[in-house]
Amino acid sequence: MHKFEEKTIKSEKIFEGKVVRLQIDEVELPNGKSAKREIIKHPGAVAILAITPDNKIILVDQFRKPMDRALVEIPAGKLEPGEKPEITAIRELEEETGYACEELELINSFYTSPGFADELIHLYLAKGLKKLDHPKSADEDEFVELLEVTLDEAIQLIQEKKIYDAKTLYAIQYLQLKEALKTHE
Amino acid sequence: MHKFEEKTIKSEKIFEGKVVRLQIDEVELPNGKSAKREIIKHPGAVAILAITPDNKIILVDQFRKPMDRALVEIPAGKLEPGEKPEITAIRELEEETGYACEELELINSFYTSPGFADELIHLYLAKGLKKLDHPKSADEDEFVELLEVTLDEAIQLIQEKKIYDAKTLYAIQYLQLKEALKTHE
Repeated sequence: MHKFEEKTIKSEKIFEGKVVRLQIDEVELPNGKSAKREIIKHPGAVAILAITPDNKIILVDQFRKPMDRALVEIPAGKLEPGEKPEITAIRELEEETGYACEELELINSFYTSPGFADELIHLYLAKGLKKLDHPKSADEDEFVELLEVTLDEAIQLIQEKKIYDAKTLYAIQYLQLKEALKTHE
Repeated sequence: MHKFEEKTIKSEKIFEGKVVRLQIDEVELPNGKSAKREIIKHPGAVAILAITPDNKIILVDQFRKPMDRALVEIPAGKLEPGEKPEITAIRELEEETGYACEELELINSFYTSPGFADELIHLYLAKGLKKLDHPKSADEDEFVELLEVTLDEAIQLIQEKKIYDAKTLYAIQYLQLKEALKTHE
């Protein structure tokens, strides 16, 4: 048990949606007082840093309603109930980009907004990409535009403030670090 | 206008809390059909990569109710209404760590969970740290433990899967890249 553990006194479900659940937990604090926590439960997701045979990064430009703007991100998608993250990654890569991949390597898993949500993202590096002749298509309410960019172009997009997404910044920086360490080995 | 823009037909507020607001937007898709979007509105936040005079990274170990576990993260905190992010960063640094800083440099701003939430985090690099004799204390319902680690120790914490937070992984990797580029200039 963590010494600062917050014990649940009561948990009230406010909303159960198709993507998120909202609940309010009343907790007992380490000092004996109580507090309320607004909590979003999320099924978790995968993100894929996919490198094409000509060494380009696949990016997805899509409209994101929470911000009412388009964002450039690496491919990503929610886990289906009970689905293994690797399976989600393969499915989302195919649906969003039309590529299959031979190799899938977990880079890291991380919580995106631990202050209020439990969303956990598994970030994969996908290599050995092959364009499929008849890929499964995306969800019918998803509209995305694909970009394939070199690492230098991706870095430039960041410098121009055209990438505003945590997982995408992390993934591109991961490649940049890998390059920097390789070049100077 | 983005070509894949989703026009709002109706927006229904489900919950308005102290931290988050939940709303369901009905949108018109580019194909003319409609869809519902579950959206979390969040005031935004700052995170601080704070480097002590002896070149250590300040980390915060705290219990996070959404996951019912403790997480090791860089210091962070929510924006107050109308507050400039730099001001929030200075306040949170003082309250969570007891340090003031002379220099604050924006590393990047990013959305953490653009699929369902509009939380935007401004990540700062804080240098010129000075321990305060009488720092303002944290919110009364916040209990944190401070760690000061070298970059190598931080990298080891990541390899041991002891850091599971997106902004913290990004910040540590940022320093690692900076070191890699500097060493080999």
